[in-house]
Amino acid sequence: MRFFVGVDFGATKIRAGVVGEDGRILGRGDVDTEPRRGLEAVLANLERAVDLACRESGTPLDDASGLGVAAPGQVDRTTLTVVQAPNLGWRHVPLGALLRERFAPLPVALQNDVKAAALGEQRFGAGQGVRDLVAVFVGTGVGGGIIAGGELVDGATGAAGEVGHLVYRPEGGERCSCGAYGHYEAYAGGAAVEQRFRQRVRAGLETRALELVCGHVDAISLGTIFEAAARGDGPAREVVDELESALGGLAANLATLLNPSRIVIGGGIVRKHPHIIERVEACVRELALEAARGCEVVPSALWEDAAVLGSAAAAAAKARP
Amino acid sequence: MRFFVGVDFGATKIRAGVVGEDGRILGRGDVDTEPRRGLEAVLANLERAVDLACRESGTPLDDASGLGVAAPGQVDRTTLTVVQAPNLGWRHVPLGALLRERFAPLPVALQNDVKAAALGEQRFGAGQGVRDLVAVFVGTGVGGGIIAGGELVDGATGAAGEVGHLVYRPEGGERCSCGAYGHYEAYAGGAAVEQRFRQRVRAGLETRALELVCGHVDAISLGTIFEAAARGDGPAREVVDELESALGGLAANLATLLNPSRIVIGGGIVRKHPHIIERVEACVRELALEAARGCEVVPSALWEDAAVLGSAAAAAAKARP
Repeated sequence: MRFFVGVDFGATKIRAGVVGEDGRILGRGDVDTEPRRGLEAVLANLERAVDLACRESGTPLDDASGLGVAAPGQVDRTTLTVVQAPNLGWRHVPLGALLRERFAPLPVALQNDVKAAALGEQRFGAGQGVRDLVAVFVGTGVGGGIIAGGELVDGATGAAGEVGHLVYRPEGGERCSCGAYGHYEAYAGGAAVEQRFRQRVRAGLETRALELVCGHVDAISLGTIFEAAARGDGPAREVVDELESALGGLAANLATLLNPSRIVIGGGIVRKHPHIIERVEACVRELALEAARGCEVVPSALWEDAAVLGSAAAAAAKARP
Repeated sequence: MRFFVGVDFGATKIRAGVVGEDGRILGRGDVDTEPRRGLEAVLANLERAVDLACRESGTPLDDASGLGVAAPGQVDRTTLTVVQAPNLGWRHVPLGALLRERFAPLPVALQNDVKAAALGEQRFGAGQGVRDLVAVFVGTGVGGGIIAGGELVDGATGAAGEVGHLVYRPEGGERCSCGAYGHYEAYAGGAAVEQRFRQRVRAGLETRALELVCGHVDAISLGTIFEAAARGDGPAREVVDELESALGGLAANLATLLNPSRIVIGGGIVRKHPHIIERVEACVRELALEAARGCEVVPSALWEDAAVLGSAAAAAAKARP
């Protein structure tokens, strides 16, 4: 069996995986990204993650049939350039060429991390065999990947799938992490939701979330808010309701526009609070156009391995004779 | 040169065209659909439109290499069934099979009319050579077609592209022609906008639109409202502004999600009032995510021939050896 190396290269951590053609992960390597130390250091860290994964799998890198890398930003898949990656402070980095040099003669595939995760779910996870699929990932932000007729939708400049930055509330909307107002991410992305909630707590809001972090306002995370809501805290419950409504409205619109047979929802908060899935599915049934309502809503199956597996799948597609 | 017959089969009218491989229309035939007279009568009318087009072009139907039909509803492109077409009162009509029987041995392609129009623009019109294209058509309703990576996005059940029924205003939105609230179509579709404006006029709204139709409230159309706005009428201007904002917001969201290099806007009202294009383009520049803002916004080039040409293109794709 051939195998491929998939790398989920995030702004904080790099995870490499040695992946068999059947989607089994034979070994993993986790390393900090350390973007502040510069491009050369980041590339060395990436190489170290790959090395660790190869060691754990017991297979030398020379035996791999391809390398796939998922980067946290806008990627031009034809030139293999990272057009922009705000969390890394990168603009127009020819990452593909640099990786090719470093890992020659291995063929290199490069794509956006969220798109890679969507592809991973479609090839090996919750969307196996589904030709029309949308994946939505909830974390610090809200990202997405679209697969139409079995093909990943890239867009003209590799920027398709930015579901979090669709306008949800055209008037009087909350501020999004991108600086604009009213985006879905402002209501369902961890960074924006946490920041707003912390501000309210500092301004005197009474909430059990504060007890859960022993009074350290800055420690209130999206997880804390969900936890407080589960314990019956009113203000936290409101935020959770708002997040679920936003996510449900987003999913319903994606169903109406793209008519997928399945929507996969991923992200740590969804893993911990699976009832989000039911709420989102209820919104799709209620709000999507009738012809698109049959769409299933399911949780991710691969979670934090999704982008590693999707990168390996992209490498496999590229390596094919 | 091979040629194909393309048919734009609407709820009111049927237009057939004999189309050369180069996209030139060699002859047209226009006939009323008469859906109330039943399926058999509609098919006879369709045949008559094709016959008229063949006569005008001076080429016998026997010499055509394929027939493409665009139907006003949800079409399953694999079974060639019209799943539903509310304006015709159709559900699950095996139109493809019926047409094959009637036009044997000609190969038959069948698709949704708005998708056909999008394909027409991409093959022969305002989107020539563009691999990532979205087309939005403004008429009684607001419809759309998505082309990603050169391929038409159909969706799991042929229902993709329903841009008019995306939720624009999640709270307190106006009623859409589909019965739901807050959809883009409720703000930018002729039927909903006219109905609301007429109601306001009946309730005593003072507007120059009423003069333009000699006091016949029921005769106030979207065109009348635009005309009144152009003459400085305040209430009409407000409606036009709202329509342009909705259309601009929709285009910006489509740019952010799908990252097309071009958005084509069609429909009679756009043809008569081309400044709509500028307003929509301004919204895309302001509201779309930065990475997607480069998207051009252009008017249709084919107008009422778009679906005929797209149907012919679909027939050509099917007829290829």
